[in-house]
Amino acid sequence: MENLLETINSPKDLRGLSVEQLEHLADEMRDFVTHSVSQTGGHLASNLGIIELTIAMHRVFDFQKDRLLWDVGHQCYAHKILTGRKDRFCQLRQEGGLSGFPSPDESDCDVFSVGHAGTSIATALGMALGAQHNQTDEKIVALVGDASIVNGLSFEALNNTGLVKRQMLIVLNDNSMAIDVTQGAMAGFLSRVRLSHTYEDIRKTTNRILEHLPLVGKPMEEAIENVKKTLRMANTPSRLFESMNIPYFGPVDGHDIGSLIELFGALSHLDRPAILHVYTRKGKGYSPADDDPRKYHSTGPFEVNGDTGSPDREQRSFTAAFGDAVAELGQRDSRIAAITAAMSDGTGLAKFRQQFPQRYYDVGIAESVAVDIAAGLARQGLRPVVCIYSTFLQRGFDQIFQEASLQNLPVTFCIDRAGAVGSDGPTHHGFLDIGFLRMLPNLTVAAPADERELKAALYAAAAGSGPFAIRYPRDTVPVIPENTDAYAVGKSAVVRRGDSEFVLVTLGPLLKEALDAAEQLQKQGIRVTVVNARFAKPIDAALAEWFAQGKTVILAEDGCITGGFGSAVLERMLQIAAERNNPALRQTIGKAVLLGAPDSFVPAANRGRQLEWMGLTAQKLAQIVLELHSPTNPVQILK
Amino acid sequence: MENLLETINSPKDLRGLSVEQLEHLADEMRDFVTHSVSQTGGHLASNLGIIELTIAMHRVFDFQKDRLLWDVGHQCYAHKILTGRKDRFCQLRQEGGLSGFPSPDESDCDVFSVGHAGTSIATALGMALGAQHNQTDEKIVALVGDASIVNGLSFEALNNTGLVKRQMLIVLNDNSMAIDVTQGAMAGFLSRVRLSHTYEDIRKTTNRILEHLPLVGKPMEEAIENVKKTLRMANTPSRLFESMNIPYFGPVDGHDIGSLIELFGALSHLDRPAILHVYTRKGKGYSPADDDPRKYHSTGPFEVNGDTGSPDREQRSFTAAFGDAVAELGQRDSRIAAITAAMSDGTGLAKFRQQFPQRYYDVGIAESVAVDIAAGLARQGLRPVVCIYSTFLQRGFDQIFQEASLQNLPVTFCIDRAGAVGSDGPTHHGFLDIGFLRMLPNLTVAAPADERELKAALYAAAAGSGPFAIRYPRDTVPVIPENTDAYAVGKSAVVRRGDSEFVLVTLGPLLKEALDAAEQLQKQGIRVTVVNARFAKPIDAALAEWFAQGKTVILAEDGCITGGFGSAVLERMLQIAAERNNPALRQTIGKAVLLGAPDSFVPAANRGRQLEWMGLTAQKLAQIVLELHSPTNPVQILK
Repeated sequence: MENLLETINSPKDLRGLSVEQLEHLADEMRDFVTHSVSQTGGHLASNLGIIELTIAMHRVFDFQKDRLLWDVGHQCYAHKILTGRKDRFCQLRQEGGLSGFPSPDESDCDVFSVGHAGTSIATALGMALGAQHNQTDEKIVALVGDASIVNGLSFEALNNTGLVKRQMLIVLNDNSMAIDVTQGAMAGFLSRVRLSHTYEDIRKTTNRILEHLPLVGKPMEEAIENVKKTLRMANTPSRLFESMNIPYFGPVDGHDIGSLIELFGALSHLDRPAILHVYTRKGKGYSPADDDPRKYHSTGPFEVNGDTGSPDREQRSFTAAFGDAVAELGQRDSRIAAITAAMSDGTGLAKFRQQFPQRYYDVGIAESVAVDIAAGLARQGLRPVVCIYSTFLQRGFDQIFQEASLQNLPVTFCIDRAGAVGSDGPTHHGFLDIGFLRMLPNLTVAAPADERELKAALYAAAAGSGPFAIRYPRDTVPVIPENTDAYAVGKSAVVRRGDSEFVLVTLGPLLKEALDAAEQLQKQGIRVTVVNARFAKPIDAALAEWFAQGKTVILAEDGCITGGFGSAVLERMLQIAAERNNPALRQTIGKAVLLGAPDSFVPAANRGRQLEWMGLTAQKLAQIVLELHSPTNPVQILK
Repeated sequence: MENLLETINSPKDLRGLSVEQLEHLADEMRDFVTHSVSQTGGHLASNLGIIELTIAMHRVFDFQKDRLLWDVGHQCYAHKILTGRKDRFCQLRQEGGLSGFPSPDESDCDVFSVGHAGTSIATALGMALGAQHNQTDEKIVALVGDASIVNGLSFEALNNTGLVKRQMLIVLNDNSMAIDVTQGAMAGFLSRVRLSHTYEDIRKTTNRILEHLPLVGKPMEEAIENVKKTLRMANTPSRLFESMNIPYFGPVDGHDIGSLIELFGALSHLDRPAILHVYTRKGKGYSPADDDPRKYHSTGPFEVNGDTGSPDREQRSFTAAFGDAVAELGQRDSRIAAITAAMSDGTGLAKFRQQFPQRYYDVGIAESVAVDIAAGLARQGLRPVVCIYSTFLQRGFDQIFQEASLQNLPVTFCIDRAGAVGSDGPTHHGFLDIGFLRMLPNLTVAAPADERELKAALYAAAAGSGPFAIRYPRDTVPVIPENTDAYAVGKSAVVRRGDSEFVLVTLGPLLKEALDAAEQLQKQGIRVTVVNARFAKPIDAALAEWFAQGKTVILAEDGCITGGFGSAVLERMLQIAAERNNPALRQTIGKAVLLGAPDSFVPAANRGRQLEWMGLTAQKLAQIVLELHSPTNPVQILK
């Protein structure tokens, strides 16, 4: 068969193709995605699983007018290929290149920039209500995975679908696996459904479809006849959704393009919200990914079908260091329990899970309840460690406030992916955690600079009596021989002393950059002092010394400047100046320089570039000091 | 019958009483609560509805050892009466008095301080897992209302009950009404249940109970026999919960103490999580509250059975002013839609709801989806106004980040109860919104000082193209004749000019306090300048003028100092000093004084007292200026 993929430049080009041709196209797209991701890195398994489903949706709907809402969205590659972005895959997830997630900036066919779970049904609900208000007839389609539907936001949306009095289709893409295996009652429910592929209720189902269908004559009747042949309606699956008054159809084979087209055609005419349950196989068609979809969830570049297909990094990551530290702590202290929200590998908990399965809990993509379970465990005398990426912990903000901070319970939050995250981009940066956590009374917020500090912080948290957050980036752990001071909660450490007027105060592993900058500056005769702040809360009163000496204090953090660590230092210095009635201190507070993430969205790129844009690399820090030393051309950093 | 209530000082005193005596006690408690709340104000209707249920739970369980988890918790009065706190009801919700919510500080029988919805099943899950780990046998009981079970957090918890391999009872207290009527599919589901009070499946139900019961001999068999007589098992209700693998029992009459005792006795021996659905009547027994439970949800003092029982305030509140403004705006602009999370009256939306029912959405206590629905509406060209109390908007933080800020959509957040809330205390203060909102790019954060500004802010938001937050307190709208400057987004206004070194910069209606302080100070010869900041984001560059003049700038906000408005001004001043390379400005930034909520929890009291503790009343502001003018005794404010 001819090379079809070359001829597809927009979804309109699918129209003339037969089902057989579309199946052939799916195979070509599968090859394209596999080879493309092998060059650039990216999400593989989920994208291989959803190709036929994507083709079928685009064949039936017109997503320049109709609206397709993605959930999390990392499975949108086939969608991007079909909507004119095929040629940009060589720059997938790279600086200035194609986003790994839906992006309205790239295409009219993308409605929301997404990356967090549970938003598709929720925003689809708003879109459908908007269409209802506008009296327009575009179709609204929410695509949600079995991992995302367990999120509380999905449920809140399902519970409110009754507000919608028009078409709105929820496609449940069920591949029985989030990044790890989907957890909880919903997963059990869906797996029971998978076991009961009976066709016995086909008549009932089609009748139900017909009941809701406006009459559209002969062609529709024929479509329904076809649907009868392909639609499966088990007894069980309808219970959950239909008890919520949402008509349920399925499960259907998500790799059967012809049937999917018939189904979407019929369901697109339903005049009320409905759910179609589609069963797909993650990693389908590329056997290494099919065999181990977890490994190929998100990968760096690899060799197709080769031996070196490991996405593991060579250097030791903060994640790996944390994984070892928490497993060791679990060995020493039987009160330690670990909780994750579907990210046991991503957060480094695999080892702990293996060694202490009885003290390990994966709640699925449900960060809010993860925090509350931890609070309950802490109330029972345990020492729970909650492991969630910074950006996703935003979902637990209110629970951290009420169930951890207000109760002053010893819950430890281990926050991976804090700071710039590289190629995942704006939806995934962990820039806000310092700001939202440090507002909460009783919390300690630590940012270890290296592995020794990470371990020390974790042990201090377990030994303490209140909530404790430990943040670290998606990066390798730097080796910092100079960083030898004893670790004490709330205390900073002077790592290098210099006689110039400049003091670089860093939070977390930026210490390494500051020390490298100091080396560079020394060559130019400027000897700067370097301080490892260690904590964003509380702020060490000892930092006042540098202000009182009239130094220019540069405060660097891998987090947003707004409300961040730098502001925390300013607040504390004002407080100390007032307490000590120290005018000299007051006069130099305003000399502080705040460096961190700007009040805008930092685009996808590699993490090193992002740090550079924020003025946080050794070279930029040195440049900034030089400029302050002798103002000439201002250093370019993101505002 | 004797006065039983006088004899009850702890739950142990219930043990010797007959069912008839307990019923009599319930009547006495109902009188006690009604008269007590009529004196102090407080939550009435929900507390009247739950008295028998509370008595029955305390008769069966021992909540000094067993653990009772409340949801929201404002319905805990009967519980407090039975657990030794009866004599403190004269000081309910008052400074130094009894909290209106569960409080571990008050009693061993209270496990968590709560006030937000959806936490009971979630924390109970953690408690049960903790007991499982500890191998202890205390019973875990989560009490959740039909309004709270629709919250996403409840669902995430229900979805994870499979982790628990021991007893854990969820009591669904169904009174068919949150503060407003419960919304959504779950409400429909529960109301269908209410209509199907069939007894036909009693045998099936009791068999199911027996199936899960460990054998405990004759007494248990007798209890089961009794249960047979009282337990109702409809066909429908089991579907939702049992599809999630959670055994469901009910619905049962929540005012039938004898039956409830039998039931709790039987269910307390179940060796796995289960749900008991109890039907109660809000306001039961006090006819004005029974007739209009919404009015008597939370009330000020009133006259029992009298004509003047209105909880309405005499003075115009921010809530009322907003209600009028949004209804008027809705008239002018058909794109305006309003969204609330079960608080249409509390947020002032009743008028809008009445006038524009097609553009009004109540999603139940589900703040997360409220934000996402708004984002969807905005994508469709509407101008949604999301009305949520500050403390509950914390539940929408991540949605505001991803669905509003990142997409830069014109969603307006109208944030009532921002700042100190008075008698509801720590769980309800709105101190965090400035901090968490101003971190988000694209957002505007306004704090109107009076009604004119509130309206101007709302109109500016509707005319703008990005997300816009408007915060205002639970308070009356001050009348400020001096506040006449034209309103422009991002611009502050100088309301009073003085020649002293002091500039009071206030956010929101604190302007009134500052002007009053200025009057007081003028009498002592100190003429202060008063500036109405109007916005917490962006910060007006014009504020730099005061610093550049060497003034002492006092920044006052009804929000937490940490990461708040004051810090925003410091950050902006540092930025301006750098841009203008202005050393004079740098030298005075450190003279700033930050006033606001401390890094600790501000206790329940009246709002005026709380503002006083934070140094935000006219008198305190004047004192602070005097002290700065001539330092003597430091002014006492909360740290």
